[in-house]
Amino acid sequence: MRRVAMVGAGMTTFGEHFGLGIKDLLPMAVSEAVANVDKGFDRSDIEAAWFGELVSTDGFPAGLMADSCGLLDIPVSRLENACATGNDAIRHGVMAIASGMYDVVLVVGGDKVRETSARSTFWDWMSSNRDQAWDFALGLVAPANFALHVSRYLYESPATREHQAMVAVKNHKHGVSNPKAQMRFEITVEKVLNAPMVVEPFGLLDCSPQSDGAAAAVLVAENIADRYTDRPVWVRGVGLGMDRIMHAHKGDMTSFPASRRAAKASYAMAGLGPNDMHVAETHDCFSGVELINYEDLGFCDKFDGYKLIESGETTIGGRIPVNTSGGLKAKGHPPGATGIAQCYEIFEQLRGDAHNQVDGARNGLAHNIGGPTAVSAVTILSIDKG
Amino acid sequence: MRRVAMVGAGMTTFGEHFGLGIKDLLPMAVSEAVANVDKGFDRSDIEAAWFGELVSTDGFPAGLMADSCGLLDIPVSRLENACATGNDAIRHGVMAIASGMYDVVLVVGGDKVRETSARSTFWDWMSSNRDQAWDFALGLVAPANFALHVSRYLYESPATREHQAMVAVKNHKHGVSNPKAQMRFEITVEKVLNAPMVVEPFGLLDCSPQSDGAAAAVLVAENIADRYTDRPVWVRGVGLGMDRIMHAHKGDMTSFPASRRAAKASYAMAGLGPNDMHVAETHDCFSGVELINYEDLGFCDKFDGYKLIESGETTIGGRIPVNTSGGLKAKGHPPGATGIAQCYEIFEQLRGDAHNQVDGARNGLAHNIGGPTAVSAVTILSIDKG
Repeated sequence: MRRVAMVGAGMTTFGEHFGLGIKDLLPMAVSEAVANVDKGFDRSDIEAAWFGELVSTDGFPAGLMADSCGLLDIPVSRLENACATGNDAIRHGVMAIASGMYDVVLVVGGDKVRETSARSTFWDWMSSNRDQAWDFALGLVAPANFALHVSRYLYESPATREHQAMVAVKNHKHGVSNPKAQMRFEITVEKVLNAPMVVEPFGLLDCSPQSDGAAAAVLVAENIADRYTDRPVWVRGVGLGMDRIMHAHKGDMTSFPASRRAAKASYAMAGLGPNDMHVAETHDCFSGVELINYEDLGFCDKFDGYKLIESGETTIGGRIPVNTSGGLKAKGHPPGATGIAQCYEIFEQLRGDAHNQVDGARNGLAHNIGGPTAVSAVTILSIDKG
Repeated sequence: MRRVAMVGAGMTTFGEHFGLGIKDLLPMAVSEAVANVDKGFDRSDIEAAWFGELVSTDGFPAGLMADSCGLLDIPVSRLENACATGNDAIRHGVMAIASGMYDVVLVVGGDKVRETSARSTFWDWMSSNRDQAWDFALGLVAPANFALHVSRYLYESPATREHQAMVAVKNHKHGVSNPKAQMRFEITVEKVLNAPMVVEPFGLLDCSPQSDGAAAAVLVAENIADRYTDRPVWVRGVGLGMDRIMHAHKGDMTSFPASRRAAKASYAMAGLGPNDMHVAETHDCFSGVELINYEDLGFCDKFDGYKLIESGETTIGGRIPVNTSGGLKAKGHPPGATGIAQCYEIFEQLRGDAHNQVDGARNGLAHNIGGPTAVSAVTILSIDKG
């Protein structure tokens, strides 16, 4: 298979962008991704593009991206896969180049969660990415459905609410130095535990915020990477995994089979394993979910997630720093953008340009879990071509 | 690039399926596609799948397809590109196989237009695939926005409302023998002209119906095609084209630049031209649109579309029969399914199995135009590997 290099990446700040529409956010992210290409970039080199958006707030997503970003002469497609949209969009960019059909592609993700359509509400938003016959009607929107998993996880594993609070504290600490993050302030375990309850076991500070934002990446074929940069980041692995859509059908609430499937596919494609990773961005939509991610991604054994957070191994300076960007928790979470923004953080880490630089990071991983824990995407990036 | 063969295709009937949800329609289409594989097919051979759906009525599309079709062990992504969704989903299946990442993929499309979400209305449906800031607010939903184009086309070209009525008459006639079609009855030019006005110049019988339905295709890599069939249909060309999203920005209302771009890309990839086509399914969402399609796809010169319908060249028995299935007009139009259902018709034609068989058809074309005429997809199929 033809190798694919990431040669530029960028993102808007994540936050409450009431003054900016998706038509503003997309070109902003694209401009930064293009400006980050070391040797300069002519936009007319772009041969195809993908737009990852979970819910359209402004109408026809692919057309809106093509028009607002000046990409009318190339094919633009919208890709949607619930909260795994961003990393799945990267996967599509990789396939497109590997196919030989295109040499240079643009992958963009964005969503406006703080401002739903004039014609819809946040409940419509939520209904769009879960089973409407059962789970949505039962109230299993994002906090509630993840709470089912984490409640059982806390019951079966040695992990406690304190451990999950430590995840939130770590990610807020990481986010302070990130100029793109939505919540740049530190919190304490005590504050997390005493915050108003959203849904047991998640207090307000265990939950990621609702965010507006966009992110973009430029991918090119291996044979032309040196036209654009002398320090490409190689997309070594892309994996997507599914699981049952209804919670009544989940076999084990303490693990996400979708994540395990996505990770397995991505590691196999990369020829790398969890012990080769030096930095990772994982989907901490709710703090306790990050503990399960550690296990599903192979960073530790089942039910040992608490050890990683307790020992500081997933903090900057630890063995495998996780969510150095601040994660969804502190950086924010506009779903279509999130996976691509994770790749942007890993891209910066592997090139030594990160705000929370992990010394010597050569391989990194980005991970999404979403769509009532029924889909996961894992991207593995490396400065080694492999 | 690795060649891609279509070895199976199928579809549900298109119509008002009030008794069937998308969870029913998808497995029905998949079952028929799989049953159409000559030498038998083991579903566990499928390595990846795409679901083209314009608007989700039941929640999380990719997960819902994976779960309802028993595809939990493979990656499933949702692809959306307004009314070009179906043929763009085929394009993604082709890229996926060409990349070398997968050898066998399933491409499915479906929509339930007659039954929108419990949380949405047909107006929400319409707003999702056009610019909400201007065009939607101005009332430019599907009939109105296409009417702007066709009104100008009828003004500038020699074509009349009679010519556009002849398109509707032809497609209804073709649809009578199609067991999958929604409207299996003949109409007359007089009836079309006297039908209640929807929006000038479209009477009720110039408009395609709203439909529920699904369609599916099995694509495989060239090196394993003979495991599945001795009469593969080769996907020779896939093209996607964009245009401005707002009608205020359209340069010429009498042509669809998106179609011209998509056709150009698809013909170039196929190494074939319009004169090589023996049969075509084009996007006759409104009767007059088919006349513009003839020109954009290169079947005749600009403003000569009327000659093709007048002379019978696009009827069964003519030079280039168009919409032998009945087209969107008589077969029906569930947008996510439409492009794949068009490919199913061409697949049947090229294998000599069609209900309206075109003698000696070796090459055929499927074409969508949608998303306020801002996107088009063209797929070229052939029994010659090329």
